[in-house]
Amino acid sequence: MTRSWWGWGNVEDAVRGAELTALLARVQALTPGDLTDHQPPAIASLGLPAPRVTPPASLAGLCSADPADRAAHAHGKAFRDVVRNLHGELRHVPDLVARPRDEREVTDLLDWCTREGIAVVPFGGGTSVVGGVEPRCDGHPAVVTVDLGRMDRVLEIDRTSRAARIQTGVLGPHLESQLSPHGLTLRHFPQSFEFSTLGGWLATRAGGHYATLFTHIDDLVESLRVITPSGVSASRRLPGSGAGPSPDRLFLGSEGTLGVITEAWMRLRERPRWRARASVRFGDHAAAVAATRAIAQSGLNPANCRLLDAAESLINAGVSVGGGVLVLAFESADHPVRHSLERALELCRDHGGEPSAATRGESGRDSDQEPGEATAGGSVTEAWRSSFLRMPYQRDALARHAMIAETFETACTWDTFDALHRAVTEAARQAIREATGTDGVVTCRFTHVYPDGPAPYFGVYAAGRWGSTVAQWDHIKAAVSEAIERSGGTITHHHAVGRDHRPWYDRQRPDPFAAALSAAKAALDPAGVLNPGVLLPAP
Amino acid sequence: MTRSWWGWGNVEDAVRGAELTALLARVQALTPGDLTDHQPPAIASLGLPAPRVTPPASLAGLCSADPADRAAHAHGKAFRDVVRNLHGELRHVPDLVARPRDEREVTDLLDWCTREGIAVVPFGGGTSVVGGVEPRCDGHPAVVTVDLGRMDRVLEIDRTSRAARIQTGVLGPHLESQLSPHGLTLRHFPQSFEFSTLGGWLATRAGGHYATLFTHIDDLVESLRVITPSGVSASRRLPGSGAGPSPDRLFLGSEGTLGVITEAWMRLRERPRWRARASVRFGDHAAAVAATRAIAQSGLNPANCRLLDAAESLINAGVSVGGGVLVLAFESADHPVRHSLERALELCRDHGGEPSAATRGESGRDSDQEPGEATAGGSVTEAWRSSFLRMPYQRDALARHAMIAETFETACTWDTFDALHRAVTEAARQAIREATGTDGVVTCRFTHVYPDGPAPYFGVYAAGRWGSTVAQWDHIKAAVSEAIERSGGTITHHHAVGRDHRPWYDRQRPDPFAAALSAAKAALDPAGVLNPGVLLPAP
Repeated sequence: MTRSWWGWGNVEDAVRGAELTALLARVQALTPGDLTDHQPPAIASLGLPAPRVTPPASLAGLCSADPADRAAHAHGKAFRDVVRNLHGELRHVPDLVARPRDEREVTDLLDWCTREGIAVVPFGGGTSVVGGVEPRCDGHPAVVTVDLGRMDRVLEIDRTSRAARIQTGVLGPHLESQLSPHGLTLRHFPQSFEFSTLGGWLATRAGGHYATLFTHIDDLVESLRVITPSGVSASRRLPGSGAGPSPDRLFLGSEGTLGVITEAWMRLRERPRWRARASVRFGDHAAAVAATRAIAQSGLNPANCRLLDAAESLINAGVSVGGGVLVLAFESADHPVRHSLERALELCRDHGGEPSAATRGESGRDSDQEPGEATAGGSVTEAWRSSFLRMPYQRDALARHAMIAETFETACTWDTFDALHRAVTEAARQAIREATGTDGVVTCRFTHVYPDGPAPYFGVYAAGRWGSTVAQWDHIKAAVSEAIERSGGTITHHHAVGRDHRPWYDRQRPDPFAAALSAAKAALDPAGVLNPGVLLPAP
Repeated sequence: MTRSWWGWGNVEDAVRGAELTALLARVQALTPGDLTDHQPPAIASLGLPAPRVTPPASLAGLCSADPADRAAHAHGKAFRDVVRNLHGELRHVPDLVARPRDEREVTDLLDWCTREGIAVVPFGGGTSVVGGVEPRCDGHPAVVTVDLGRMDRVLEIDRTSRAARIQTGVLGPHLESQLSPHGLTLRHFPQSFEFSTLGGWLATRAGGHYATLFTHIDDLVESLRVITPSGVSASRRLPGSGAGPSPDRLFLGSEGTLGVITEAWMRLRERPRWRARASVRFGDHAAAVAATRAIAQSGLNPANCRLLDAAESLINAGVSVGGGVLVLAFESADHPVRHSLERALELCRDHGGEPSAATRGESGRDSDQEPGEATAGGSVTEAWRSSFLRMPYQRDALARHAMIAETFETACTWDTFDALHRAVTEAARQAIREATGTDGVVTCRFTHVYPDGPAPYFGVYAAGRWGSTVAQWDHIKAAVSEAIERSGGTITHHHAVGRDHRPWYDRQRPDPFAAALSAAKAALDPAGVLNPGVLLPAP
């Protein structure tokens, strides 16, 4: 397999042939446009500027100035990243890509960069969709991207407490393959699972497999080791504590601005043995939302509880339904979960939901451990699941055909959801018309649900104009972000802030907390070299 | 009811008569000593120094210099606080007790104190057992204790999202009585429930009713309003977010050092309708621990899962059993929980546990909403529950009779529990012998359990020497704190750090995080007036 430098995942997995024909036909039916295919440029044609810095001899062996490396580390994997890559527009490229093998080398890199004022961009799998790894660091003489990919081992396993000490550069599948012989799993499956790292999940508070309870990676953290320019911060392994503000919670979500997270003790579990799954169709979206809320407040705590609206059901699960489809799954390594599913379905029926005939009962077989696997259960959800894993590849194919295809997400309390949903959808539709002159499609699903509110996840599909799709998307994104901010939602539930969400994050974040965070950063990173411009203004 | 200035709770609820006789007899049997009763001194005899400061006219109406007020705000409610009160030893007394009625007045108080360099001790219910409200602030010209007791209303209820906006000065029962007409409950019942406040719970990361999942108040917080000397920090109401490090998590556990928490949106729930409870006896403590771990890792998530060791069972539940008693309870407002209890009992039997004959099956009746109520279930647990609520009163009665009676707590991973338990118990026993020349009693229970470890809670009972019991206890406390620290536990799972846990907290806390926290404090409280000496060194 060859990793794509410009787009998602592996080159060999790109959408092509019959899948491409079908995808384009489906999208043409919704929002017709010019469908010329635009190939990615050759790296040699990019004309990258020469690196502005030479590493000291002691670090030279860790550092690559190879154009392919530098190009592949210039952007994340958002729509706007992919399109700019397709246009060969790489305005900010790291001067060097460093690949430390241990904490000593991370420290040495930070020391060198701190001394020279060189910006440091910590880099896991590079799947940021918010400009989190893009080195827009103009105030610095150079930028070194520190790719943690060589620090990818599970170092220690505590079977009794079900926890493991793990190097943070490990990709999802490699992590699970190291845990599997011990009968354990982290069971954190973001959509990016195959190409993102533990360190990236921790630094960005990634959302994972579980729709309820342990929604963010935060909840699975026992302790962290973080290399900061001011020393190593190592928290104690604890199942819970009340000793002052949580040290780990300061670094979770710090997005590379306070230090480089190198190791974590993570809470694990056994692979599920019992599973019960169903999908439920609703004729009315408000009723579907009410049913989902009832389940979220029931204490049943499903592993999956994903409400797809009508458009999402049609585009990504091939189901035509008026109000949407609720995908439900329960799982346990200890006990049957049939009762829980039955009660959840009862709550759905109370709200007019119709469980699919393809609903599966109790399953005793072991989980197949694939990301998204608990979304399976009946043809509707299997279709959706397969679509879920193909989405980023499809997005790239659409981007090559001048389509605008991107997602954004938030979370809000239940009482504000209707107004937020309306405001965001209307803002998106209007902005699409303004930007493209045509009507697009706006979809919504819930990725996670809480007793006090859902995490809505929106998709936008529209026919763009080749050469302008980034500007068109930026216009739409600004409009929906304004709508989210004004409706009381968070600018991100699990995509992180990066550089792109800053204007809205700055308004959402309490000013005194901004002052406290800036002061904390100044204490840990006095030279201000760590991921400048992310979370906080570049100095 | 009259609140005791020197001891726990209400004067009218003190241990007396037959209860006192029985208590003293029980303790005499375990650890004989001189049982003269020592009465608390009259407040007039304390000879408190005159206040060193006069409030400005605009704030005079909020400030009390009444000796009874000042004496009642001088100490928390730890054993060492009560004993020092009994001896009339009040070395640090606030100069004034201020009772603001709204945020404007809190701000005005902070402005005045910041201007004058006067130390500010935020005060909720004053039940700190770690010196958190004791004004040991020698570097300041005066100390004002800000008692939030007048800010005690539920301001707004969102029935849809099941949340409420609440002023933080509200005591537990008054909070529940305001929620009850709406069919909602916070369901956070620390042992101090009757006499502690929401603000105190938030500032100290209090542990509550739930033995699993939502163990700390932290998990029930939707948003916070905090008045800092640098402005108001108001976070957004969100069910979940991934926008940078959590602002709320910086203030949770800040123990009054960063600001005064004045309001919070808290997540609520409906009162439970189904409950299933049991107690399980074990002949062997290691087997009881293994059974408890199996339940903690099962995903069954009992509301109560409290393992009492043999000494704890005997002293506080009147049960003689070799390995201990596990008190289990499940509860739900939505669905029967019998299946969950049955599976938990199966896990207990697998480890040699014997469920009590008094085990209750499913209960359909509504909860009585009392603190600790889910601990009920069979005569063993009912005895323990009633004991739980009387414990602080009994502690005071013992203190008056020159007994040493105190608790301390921690949390650790399962793999380290055996060694920690042994080290702490041995350290306690040896220190008791060193301090008192006699053998005492050391008990252990789990207050909360996690998949990766328990929160052990220890009790110490020993015959002391009147006039020396504080020094004797301090010797014991230092020994057990060393043992906890060396064994990898946290110096506190839910009692907080305050001033008394500082030496061990300082060693446990990562140095870079200490630097970050100090910097954050300097940004929010530039004059360093907020609760000096708590969490961080006094300037």
